[in-house]
Amino acid sequence: MSITISVDMMSGDGGAPVAIPAVLQVLKNNADVRLLLVGDESSLRPKLEKSGSQYADRWTIEHAEEVVSMDDSPVQVLRRKKRSSMRIAINLIKEGRADACVSAGNTGALMATAHYVLKTIPGIERPAIVSAFPTVKVGQKTLLLDLGATVDNSPEQLFQFAVMGSTLAQVIHNIESPKVGLMNVGKEAIKGNEVVKQVHELLVDSELNYFGYIEGNDIFTGSVDVIVMDGFAGNVALKSIEGIVKFLMSTVKSVLCSSPWLKVLAVPAYPLLRRIKQKVDPDRYNGAMLLGLNGVVVKSHGGANSVAFSYAIQEAISAASQGVVTLIRDRVAMLLQED
Amino acid sequence: MSITISVDMMSGDGGAPVAIPAVLQVLKNNADVRLLLVGDESSLRPKLEKSGSQYADRWTIEHAEEVVSMDDSPVQVLRRKKRSSMRIAINLIKEGRADACVSAGNTGALMATAHYVLKTIPGIERPAIVSAFPTVKVGQKTLLLDLGATVDNSPEQLFQFAVMGSTLAQVIHNIESPKVGLMNVGKEAIKGNEVVKQVHELLVDSELNYFGYIEGNDIFTGSVDVIVMDGFAGNVALKSIEGIVKFLMSTVKSVLCSSPWLKVLAVPAYPLLRRIKQKVDPDRYNGAMLLGLNGVVVKSHGGANSVAFSYAIQEAISAASQGVVTLIRDRVAMLLQED
Repeated sequence: MSITISVDMMSGDGGAPVAIPAVLQVLKNNADVRLLLVGDESSLRPKLEKSGSQYADRWTIEHAEEVVSMDDSPVQVLRRKKRSSMRIAINLIKEGRADACVSAGNTGALMATAHYVLKTIPGIERPAIVSAFPTVKVGQKTLLLDLGATVDNSPEQLFQFAVMGSTLAQVIHNIESPKVGLMNVGKEAIKGNEVVKQVHELLVDSELNYFGYIEGNDIFTGSVDVIVMDGFAGNVALKSIEGIVKFLMSTVKSVLCSSPWLKVLAVPAYPLLRRIKQKVDPDRYNGAMLLGLNGVVVKSHGGANSVAFSYAIQEAISAASQGVVTLIRDRVAMLLQED
Repeated sequence: MSITISVDMMSGDGGAPVAIPAVLQVLKNNADVRLLLVGDESSLRPKLEKSGSQYADRWTIEHAEEVVSMDDSPVQVLRRKKRSSMRIAINLIKEGRADACVSAGNTGALMATAHYVLKTIPGIERPAIVSAFPTVKVGQKTLLLDLGATVDNSPEQLFQFAVMGSTLAQVIHNIESPKVGLMNVGKEAIKGNEVVKQVHELLVDSELNYFGYIEGNDIFTGSVDVIVMDGFAGNVALKSIEGIVKFLMSTVKSVLCSSPWLKVLAVPAYPLLRRIKQKVDPDRYNGAMLLGLNGVVVKSHGGANSVAFSYAIQEAISAASQGVVTLIRDRVAMLLQED
C-alpha cells in the first residue's frame, strides 16, 4: 500500500530551505511514499526540479499563496488564512488525497485548524498532543500526553487521552499491553487535585493496564509506557525540560569559551560527546502528534533543522501506514461507547 | 544579633552521618550562629563531642526519640510522631527558642507538621514551597513557587504566592523591584486555564512589578525573578527537571562505561567537567523554603549529602537573619489586607 503525506513546506522558523532537504531525504529512504508538497510554487519548483528530479513521479507541488507566521493567532488563521500552506496541507487529508500531514507551524494555529477541518473521533471530546521521550531503559520510550492541546480537562477527557495513548503505544512501540501512568504530585492515594483523583477511579475500573500514580521524574525512568496529564501541566513539563537542556548546553559552551586551555583539553573528548549526542539526539525526538482527530497530523518543532524535520515526516509515515486513526477509533468505540 | 537554628538531625535518607559533618561546617563558617541539634542523644553526643568540641558553646542536643521515615504519611506523623526529631525541631520555633528550622524529612510530613504547629501568616491562606533555580544570566536566579505544598489553588492563593515570592526575592536576592512572571502555556492573553486568567487580572491590578505570562523554559532564561504557579504544575515541573538531569547523567555514564577507550579519551576533559559541575552545582541549590508560615522552615533534599545539607542550613540562617517572616507579614498586611 502506498502512503501519501502532505507536507507544509513554508511554516516554521526555517521555511522551505529546511523543508526541501528533509523531503528529499524522506523520498530517498521510502520508495513507496508519495509527498504532496504544499507551498509557494515559484520558490519550491526550481529547487525541487534541480535536486529531486529522480523522485519526480513521487512528489507533487500543491500551490499555497499564504503562510501562517509563528505569531498568528489561531482565530486569525482560521478566519483569514484559508489559503495558507498549513490549511491546504490539512485540507488534503479531509479530501482523502493525503493519509497524514506534517507542519512546523505554530502549535495553536495548527491545533485549531486541524480540529476545525478534521473534527474529533466519535467518543473523543478534545484532541491531545503526544510525544515520545527517551528513558534510561535502552530502547524504551515513554509517550506523554497532553502536551498542551487544551487546558482545564475534565476527568472523562483525561481518561480518553489514556485510551488514545495506550493504543498509540501498542501500534508504534509494539507493546502488547502498555502500562499507563497518571501524573501526580506523589504516589500515595491521598495526593493530587480533584480531577486527578477522579481520573484515577476511571482508570482503576477500566480495561487498560493501569500502573497508578507517577511523578515527573518517571518520564525518564521507563516505569510506564504512557503518561497521562492535563495539557497545562504537560506543557509546563515539556517546556521546563527544554529549558534545562538549553541551560546546560549554554553552560557547557560558556565554560569552553572561558579559556582556550579548556577548549584544547576538551578536544580528545569529542568522540565521547558525539556518542552522547547520538544517544539523546533531540532531532530523533522531533515530531509531536495531534491525537484524537480524523486524520494524522504531526507537528514538527518550529526551529527544527532538515534532519529533525525528516524525522517528523517519518513519524507521520509510520502512523499512517499502521492505520493509527482507525485503530484509535475502534478502541474508543470498544472502551468508551459501550454503555 | 545571634541566630539560632534548630536542625532535624535524623530525617532524610542519610540521617545523622550526613547531618553531623554539615552542622560542623556551618558552625565553623558562622561564628555567631547557635544550633539546636534535634535527635537521638546517645548516637549524636559521642560524635559531636569528638569532632565538635571547639564549638561546644554554640551547639546543644535536644533529644528526640522518634524519627519520621520517608514513607510516613502526614496524618500518621501528626497523630503519632509527636516526639519525632522533625516535630521537636519545628516546636522549637513555636517556643521562641529557634529562629528557623531545617529538615531533610519527607515533604508531606514536614509541610503538615509545620503548617499545624506554626500556622499561616494572617492574610495567607496556604503555605507554598519555594526554591531558587540557576539561569543563563550570570549571578541571576529565579524563584519558583509553589513546588507542591498544596494543589487546587484559588486565584487569590496564587496571588498571595506572588506577594510572598516578590518579598523573598527582594530580601534574599537583593532585587529592589523583582519581576514576577505567571506560568502559562503560552504568552498570549487568550491562553491558559481559568484560574491563571484570574490571577493575571489580580496581578495586573496590583502594585507588584508584574511581567506577564511566561512559559516553562523561562525558568532558566532569567527573564523574571519570581515565577508563580499552582503546586501541581510546579511539582511536575520540578520533578521533570530532576528526571531529565538524572537521565542525562546516566547517559554520560553509560557511554563512558561502554568502552575503556572512551574513558581514556575523557580523562583530559575532567577539568572541564569539574568547571561545569561547579557552575550548575546542584548541592548549592539544595534547600527549599516553606513560605507563608509564622517561622522559617527549610526543607533539604532527602538524598542530600553533607555539603548540600550545609547549604540548606545556610539558607535558613540567611532567611532568619534577614527577618523574612516579618517582612512577608508586613508586605502581606500592606498589599492584601487594605480592603
